[in-house]
Formats: sequence, C-alpha cells, structure tokens
Amino acid sequence: MNQNPAARLDGSVRVVGAGLLGASIGLGLTERGVDVILADASRATLDLAIDYGAGRAAHEGDDPALIVVAVPPDATAAVVAAELAAYPNATVTDVASVKMAPLTELTAVGADLSRYVGSHPLAGRERGGPISARADLFIGRPWVVCPRAEVEPARINLVERLILDLQATPASLPADEHDAAVALVSHAPQVISTLMAKRLTAAPPGALSLAGQGVRDVTRIAASDPELWVQILAANAPAVVEILRAYRDDLDAALVALSDVGAPGARRTIAGELAAGNAGVAGLPGKHGQDRRYASVIVMVDDKPGELGRLFTELGEIGVNIEDLRLEHSPGALVGLAELAVLPEVKSRAVDDLSARGWRIAG
Amino acid sequence: MNQNPAARLDGSVRVVGAGLLGASIGLGLTERGVDVILADASRATLDLAIDYGAGRAAHEGDDPALIVVAVPPDATAAVVAAELAAYPNATVTDVASVKMAPLTELTAVGADLSRYVGSHPLAGRERGGPISARADLFIGRPWVVCPRAEVEPARINLVERLILDLQATPASLPADEHDAAVALVSHAPQVISTLMAKRLTAAPPGALSLAGQGVRDVTRIAASDPELWVQILAANAPAVVEILRAYRDDLDAALVALSDVGAPGARRTIAGELAAGNAGVAGLPGKHGQDRRYASVIVMVDDKPGELGRLFTELGEIGVNIEDLRLEHSPGALVGLAELAVLPEVKSRAVDDLSARGWRIAG
Repeated sequence: MNQNPAARLDGSVRVVGAGLLGASIGLGLTERGVDVILADASRATLDLAIDYGAGRAAHEGDDPALIVVAVPPDATAAVVAAELAAYPNATVTDVASVKMAPLTELTAVGADLSRYVGSHPLAGRERGGPISARADLFIGRPWVVCPRAEVEPARINLVERLILDLQATPASLPADEHDAAVALVSHAPQVISTLMAKRLTAAPPGALSLAGQGVRDVTRIAASDPELWVQILAANAPAVVEILRAYRDDLDAALVALSDVGAPGARRTIAGELAAGNAGVAGLPGKHGQDRRYASVIVMVDDKPGELGRLFTELGEIGVNIEDLRLEHSPGALVGLAELAVLPEVKSRAVDDLSARGWRIAG
Repeated sequence: MNQNPAARLDGSVRVVGAGLLGASIGLGLTERGVDVILADASRATLDLAIDYGAGRAAHEGDDPALIVVAVPPDATAAVVAAELAAYPNATVTDVASVKMAPLTELTAVGADLSRYVGSHPLAGRERGGPISARADLFIGRPWVVCPRAEVEPARINLVERLILDLQATPASLPADEHDAAVALVSHAPQVISTLMAKRLTAAPPGALSLAGQGVRDVTRIAASDPELWVQILAANAPAVVEILRAYRDDLDAALVALSDVGAPGARRTIAGELAAGNAGVAGLPGKHGQDRRYASVIVMVDDKPGELGRLFTELGEIGVNIEDLRLEHSPGALVGLAELAVLPEVKSRAVDDLSARGWRIAG
C-alpha cells in the first residue's frame, strides 16, 4: 500500500545534491507527502535546503527505494557508483544534462548498472543553489529517461513515477540520442551565443547604445554560469563538436561570400543561408511568434503603473486567453509594445474589442 | 512661420518608398499635421499607403524642403541621386541600415552631396510593407544621423527635426562608425543566429521537442526576411566580415579545446570563453535581466483568461511599475512564469505584497 496518498511514488526518496535541481525535487516531492532524505557534500547547503523544506537529513537505517543524484556533471558518475554500492536494492537515477559520459564512467568502474536509470529534466535556470529552488520547477517540462535493456521495467517505471509526481512530462530516449539532441538544442546554441557576446566586449564607443532586441535575444544565454557549462560542454564534447564543425563550415562559406559579394553566386549563397535559417526556426515547436498555431496582436501600453493590468483585465473581460506575451520597450520611451500571442480564431475579436475600448493596436 | 503647429518640421515632406518605414514615417508626420507627399515605384503599394493615411500622391509643383528616401538598401543611392537632381533645393535623407555604401555610390555618380544627410532609424520589424506601418514605430528608438563637414548645419537640423517629430532619439555618428556599430549589434548577430537555425534543419527525430527558451532566443531573428538581409549584409560586408572573422577564430579555438577536453589548458580555454560571454552580455545597456538596474520577480500564473490581468491590476494597486516582462510557458503546462523586472528598491515590497495576496513567487 502506498504510504503517500497524493503521490505515485511509494516510500522514501533519497536526493543527493541539494542545489537548485535537488532542492527543487525535494520541495516538489515533500509537497506530495513523500519522505525526502537529503544529502549534500556541503553541510551549509544541506542545512539551507532542509530549512527551505526540501527534505530531512539522513538517519541510520534509511532504506530508500529511489535515489536521485543531483550533483554537477563531473561528479555524477562517482556519486551514482557510491550510492549504488551503499544501497544495494535501490534504483538510482541522476539528473545530469549529459547521459553518455556518466554511463561510460560507471561501466569502467564496474557499477551495478542494472539498477541505474539515467535521466535529464529540461528545466533549470541561470541561477543555481537551493535558494533558487522551487517545487514547481519541473511542471510541464520534458524529462528524458534513458532506458537500457539490462534495467528491469519496474525500475524505469519508478523513475517515471518520480517525473509524474513532479508534474513533468517523461520522454524516452537512448543516452546517445539524448546527448545528440541536447548538443543541438542546448549546448551548441550556448557556445554560439557565448562567442557572439564575447565580440561585444570589443565594441567601439557608443555601439552598444544601438543594440536592439535582436542582439539581446541572441546573447541572453551567454549570461549562464561558466563553471557549470565547462562541465556540460566537456562531458558532451564529441556531439557538440560535430555540430559546431558543421556550423563553422557554413560560417566559412558565408565569409567567402561576404568577402567578395560581387562574385558570381555570392549573393545566392548568402540568401540560401538566410532561407535555411528561416526553415530552421519554423521547425521549432512551441511558442514565440515562430509558432503558426498562434496569431499576434501588438498593443501599445503606456509606461505607467496599472496599464498592463488594465490591458489584461480587459482581455479577461473579453474572454481572450493570452498564449504568450513579449513586452518590447525602448529605454526612455513613454510607451511599450505588448505582443500578445492568441489563438488565430480570436484575433479579430481581440483587435476589435480592444480597439473599441480605446487601446491602440500596432499590429 | 511654421505651417504645422504640432510639428518641428515646416512645409511638405516627400517620402519615397511606401513600405514599412516610409509608410510609418508618413503616418507619424501626418498625425502631426505635416503635408506628406508619398511616392513608390509600385502603384499598388503607393495606393495602399495612401489608403492607410500615410500621405498624398505627388502634384505638379510640389516643393518639399525635406525628402526621405525609404527604399531597399540596394536601390537607396540611385533614388537619393535622382531626388537630389529633381529637387535642387531640397535636403535629402535616407533610412537605409548601412551608411557607407550609399555615400560611396553617390560620390561615384557625382551627386550634390552638400544636400545629402544619411540617417538610420533603429526600428523595424520582421514583417514589412505598408500594411505593418504604424505612426509610433520610431517612438523612443535611436535614430542615427551621419553629419559630414560639407553639409550645412541647417540641413542636418532639418533631419533632426524629422526625427524629433517622430518621437525618436537622434544620435550622431560618422557613417563608417555607424556601419561598424550596426555590424556588431545587428548584422553579425543576424548571421550567427541564421547559421544556428540552419543547424536545426538537420535535427534528429524528436530533438526539437527538447528545445527550450535558450535556443528559441538565439534563433529568433533567423526568421527575418532573406531578400532584405542579403542587401543589408552585402552593403556592409567589410565590417561584418571583420567581426565574423574574429568570431570564427574564437570558434576554432573552442573547437580545438572541445576536441580534446583532457588536454592541458582545454577547460581553461572553454571557461575563458564562457566568462568573456558573461562580460559581453553585462555590457549591453537596457533591459531583460542582464540589466543590473532592475531586479527580477518571478510569479507563477495559472494559464487561464484573466490571471495575468489580475496580476497586473494588483501590481497597479500595490503601485509597482513593471519595467519589463517576460512570460515563460511550456507547451502543455498549466502555469506560466511571469518574470517581472522592477526597480531594485521596490522588489521586496512587490514580493511581500504579492505573496500576501496569494501569488506564488518563484524567484
């Protein structure tokens, strides 16, 4: 019988590593009544996470069915191996953002891989530490599970129950496919963005005052934590290198074309790259304008308290749900633009009703 | 005496090219009572812009003091030269996003450069055409004017009055410095983003479903119009090439380090690039989290009509102004995160008051 009526997981869960991810897992499971045992190499971090309500300290005789290792990528394999050895019946998962490197390392040290299920929640923020933790960090996020033939289905199911209890969405991918996928949608973009941001450090005087939303978006993730990202990039280097080499070849071709734009075919090369970029963006699922599932309504909003509130209140009165929103606002401007993503079938009603209420619609 | 009491500009303004920028200039000036004469190579575009209220058709005997050329970059110099010849007293400006190439071309054809003042409004959108035009397109945006010694101050002042009438912010930069600046903050990021988006076209099955906000931001501008961008990049190719070559050198260094992460110094190289990226982002003025002038408050918002409205209404009641806002929302999730940028001194009050009203603060 399940001791935790509000949870799919039964029994205690041990979480090793009480940083952002570990403490968030602890908070989410605690909310569901699961007994969470926290451990961390740092006593101060552990105490802080316990104070935050993310779980309790370990006791003699704890017998967790599931252990979640949430330590930095470089430390993951060693901690997983130690936990497998210390708890000979437990299923052990980890949440590192690379999955082949820990598996290879665990194989090398002869760990009991029949009880190890690698996983990776696609959640997290630029800021780390238990102080940023929250119970809802994983809600609606994909969480990849890497099954292997030697692992009993019941153990994989246990990890899936963890994921469902945290309201994330389980996805199943072999470790190598996972690593190739995140190299493309996360690790290579990090490098691309970082190197563009680095160029800005050589900006001539005044140039950055001309920066608009484009360069801000391209370089936003370049603000990420270097210490963490060195580990991620190093652990997934072969997959990242493969993408960056193809990128570099395209960049070289663009450089050749741009270095002599009058040469036959040069403009066609540049146009071809730009069109391929259009196609790449169009292939991304989800929101933010690229998504053909939504229509865009752009509303002018005066830059004073309550104006956005009035807009959203009136949208609520009209009965229009906002699928996404982007606020654009130049320094010094007296108005901002709120770009609302709405279902296409409600767009004309939203425009008409907002206009009738005096809102200026800019697109 | 000024014929236009609500405007700084006196007399008629002729706008050549009735696309997004030209029609928006026409709308903005018409709103201020300025007589706007529109021209466009396409009769259909011209009629549409006139229907939109962006101005009137040309008459025999029109004598504009100021002419604004708002045609694609490739056509700019030829149209500016023709306008200088057709109106021998008028000051002519253009709004092309590159400034050296038209100047060089105008010099080559022997145009009367004493009446030409190049300019560039940093405004615009991914969508073009008069249908996207709006009177407020330029409000609060930087608008660069490129003065030259041979141009009388009164002509430069005329262009500045145009800019002020459109509520933009004039900035003065020589043409070459302008081109170097936009190569860095606009043209190079466009290529960087485009080539990353192109990589996504080679995504293995399922990989794009793991895409998060990071890759979306990095590739957003890759959705821009290829036809326009070929012209922009070609016209500013030397400045763009200089930045992209430095970028390529950094990328090569990163590739060497990532290809052998165990080699001495490899991790230090990667960490150094990541730290330089941090520094580059921190140097950008303005909003969006990177800006140290604002503090961030993250609020959970249920995905249903009226919830954002309630949030902003209550922020208005509390008296907290939102400097910027980013809505994060995973497909399928029941809640979104509204990341509010507020002045640092009001953050704790915003958090306390919102919490007291039952809002869940996530960071």
